[in-house]
Amino acid sequence: MKLYTMARSSAAFRARIALNLKGLSYESIPKALVKNEHRTPEYLALNPQGFIPALEMDDGTVLSQSLAIAEYLDELHPEPRFLPTDPLARAQVRSMALAIACDIHPLNNLRVLNYLRNELAQDEDAVTAWYRHWIEQGFRALETLAREHSHARRYLFADSVSLADICLVPQMFNARRFHVDVSSFPTLVAISAHLESLPAFAAARPDAQPDAA
Amino acid sequence: MKLYTMARSSAAFRARIALNLKGLSYESIPKALVKNEHRTPEYLALNPQGFIPALEMDDGTVLSQSLAIAEYLDELHPEPRFLPTDPLARAQVRSMALAIACDIHPLNNLRVLNYLRNELAQDEDAVTAWYRHWIEQGFRALETLAREHSHARRYLFADSVSLADICLVPQMFNARRFHVDVSSFPTLVAISAHLESLPAFAAARPDAQPDAA
Repeated sequence: MKLYTMARSSAAFRARIALNLKGLSYESIPKALVKNEHRTPEYLALNPQGFIPALEMDDGTVLSQSLAIAEYLDELHPEPRFLPTDPLARAQVRSMALAIACDIHPLNNLRVLNYLRNELAQDEDAVTAWYRHWIEQGFRALETLAREHSHARRYLFADSVSLADICLVPQMFNARRFHVDVSSFPTLVAISAHLESLPAFAAARPDAQPDAA
Repeated sequence: MKLYTMARSSAAFRARIALNLKGLSYESIPKALVKNEHRTPEYLALNPQGFIPALEMDDGTVLSQSLAIAEYLDELHPEPRFLPTDPLARAQVRSMALAIACDIHPLNNLRVLNYLRNELAQDEDAVTAWYRHWIEQGFRALETLAREHSHARRYLFADSVSLADICLVPQMFNARRFHVDVSSFPTLVAISAHLESLPAFAAARPDAQPDAA
């Protein structure tokens, strides 16, 4: 398999964690967003959204959207499970994952920050305030959910790794990169610290990628 | 079951479609966003994100996030299936659903539009341009995916209803409400027209809700 990736992309970071957790090897094909390598006709033919990541299977089939990729890998390779077996628990895990993947991350994508800078003529202070605002608002809700659902502050849901954890670690990385004061979210910080110590998460870090800046 | 809902909320519209498709009856509890009824301590205790929709089960358990709710209903009530059986097809449906639920809709939420108006002092023309921009960018990619995956332009994926259709119809409703020129997306328009003719979708429309403006 080939993963079209970018070191700092949160969504690619999730896909790398998912592949690593399942013990699947893959070839990294880095795409430089600053060079618009995700907007070439060749890449758009693979992924019409022009987003990173995309996973290309050996038969040439391409899958986009990190959560769809993670659930696909989970259905084909059951261990370790990314979702519990109980339907309600599965929904609670998905809900936490989506609280990051829908309600925090898309607002802070590069294309959105560039719209603020260009079309809306915002300066970097305003862009940084925007970035932090959505993380802080999202993390406040997620901290409450984590206190309710985490056992022993090692994983977001109960006591094993899940789709929600795959989303948390890249979002925490972004929060730190933009100097969000994460001390207000002690449960999330503790969980992320534990997850970051696991080899599958550590090997997926941006600074461990071939295209690290 | 109780659905905390709002007539015009896209995410609540998805949840209503999902419940209707499964033939499940529910009590609508409308929340008026303009009156901040989703920010009361009572509602935040049910859903820490303070977002609409939330589904309260008869035992008091509350689920948030429309896609998590839809997949939960799908796991408990298999017919009609919201996802195909083949793992790759499931991933392609989820990918199309997420292309709307992550990459279009969250950028156009009321909280985001209000941030543009208030913190960034943007006028209504700029807010409308923002709204249309993300729909048009998202629909361009989705139109390509629909041409690849739809059979006979009745459903987004193959020839039966799916999670992706549940996301398309509310997004098309919003596109029209903000006068996006949808004629550039003929496949999406044709699919949405077919879906809107189905009773489960029609009954979920904003103007069919008890709190319709």
